[in-house]
Amino acid sequence: MQRYQCTLSYDGSQFSGYQVQPNARTVQKELETALAKLHKGNSVPVTASGRTDAGVHAKGQVIHFDSPLHIPVSKWELALNTLLPGDIAVNRIEKAAAGFHARFDTVGKEYRYFVHLSARRDPFKRNYAYQFSYPIDYVAMKEALKFFIGSHDFTSFCSAKTTIEDRVRTIKEIEFFEEGDLLVFRLVGNGFLYNMVRIIVGTLLEIGSGERSPYQIPEILEKRDRTLAGKTIPGHGLYLWKVFY
Amino acid sequence: MQRYQCTLSYDGSQFSGYQVQPNARTVQKELETALAKLHKGNSVPVTASGRTDAGVHAKGQVIHFDSPLHIPVSKWELALNTLLPGDIAVNRIEKAAAGFHARFDTVGKEYRYFVHLSARRDPFKRNYAYQFSYPIDYVAMKEALKFFIGSHDFTSFCSAKTTIEDRVRTIKEIEFFEEGDLLVFRLVGNGFLYNMVRIIVGTLLEIGSGERSPYQIPEILEKRDRTLAGKTIPGHGLYLWKVFY
Repeated sequence: MQRYQCTLSYDGSQFSGYQVQPNARTVQKELETALAKLHKGNSVPVTASGRTDAGVHAKGQVIHFDSPLHIPVSKWELALNTLLPGDIAVNRIEKAAAGFHARFDTVGKEYRYFVHLSARRDPFKRNYAYQFSYPIDYVAMKEALKFFIGSHDFTSFCSAKTTIEDRVRTIKEIEFFEEGDLLVFRLVGNGFLYNMVRIIVGTLLEIGSGERSPYQIPEILEKRDRTLAGKTIPGHGLYLWKVFY
Repeated sequence: MQRYQCTLSYDGSQFSGYQVQPNARTVQKELETALAKLHKGNSVPVTASGRTDAGVHAKGQVIHFDSPLHIPVSKWELALNTLLPGDIAVNRIEKAAAGFHARFDTVGKEYRYFVHLSARRDPFKRNYAYQFSYPIDYVAMKEALKFFIGSHDFTSFCSAKTTIEDRVRTIKEIEFFEEGDLLVFRLVGNGFLYNMVRIIVGTLLEIGSGERSPYQIPEILEKRDRTLAGKTIPGHGLYLWKVFY
């Protein structure tokens, strides 16, 4: 048996998320179907760095799996890409130590969230960026960023359905920049809770559009109450950009 | 009755082309369904500048239709965009003269063809650009462009299924430029035959990759034989960019 570490891109728009679920097209299912074909129908479970929701994209999702096949590492990429559907691509595959674990060994992740700044909807961006048509106060939004940096209990900024108890996470970097008519938010942290990026960016956009003040953030963090933060914006603007080990 | 001229964008990837056909999702059908909803179920036929094939996109398709509704022109855009699916958007709508005809009044069109220069497939470009992994000789390809400029019988560069007799068309502009890892071909002409852009760009890429010489073009044009030109490359790289009246 050889363990492999594999980096993937996927367009999340035609998937019901990453994780296998009955009667749904998921990234994990497509990966396991392709691997089963390579292994004469034998099932090969894959483990990802984490799930992504329906509509969420990945530019650098990482998975691991074990295989008894003696395929040179240089051939694995072609073999898998030939079997995978067009909306998933293997970017890199390499041998990993037997003890490597795509989820437990993660030390950080980078997410990006794309906002399409336009009053007019664009058919080519509908699945790839969140359309936002209000003027943005960049100074106010920038002012808010610094309150997120560092270690905080992010209870107010994760889904109320979150069952995990320890909600302290460390945000190492948070910034935004423009790329043409896109506004890109970039967040790097040691880990992110369920919907955390979507709620943080949703809250930042409410600050940008003047609905709330940047100076509310410390109090929202402190109160640990999901209802105090902004709305959860759609998954289709979100990209799992990179996983750090 | 008021005639309206309307400019549309659409992502062609989920359509079986522009024109209505039985049991298929087409752009025309979605437009006519939306208009029927606005007209209490009465059918409102639309006429486009021309058809586009399955997978082909539009940034500036033009249609006309007639309506008895007294909607201010400023409200039409919102009304239609609310009823249309996300992969079609109205960019502009204006009153037209009763005699205006979206097809017959066309004096020219601009098409663009997007090539993704990469050995690795990209899930985010799979429906929007044609992946091409060979090195390109830009000098040879540029040399070929000049032979297409002007009026020629383009029989060799249109589908063998073309039934139209007069195959003389005038190409006013033809060029290519790079945008990141995309190679964009831009063609402006008084009209284009069936598959003409896809065959011209397919032939140019064969010149670029060294399969053929740019100096073959005058002879291919002269012989009026489809088998002499390059292959028809896929529709998903093609965009109807602009229609001129």
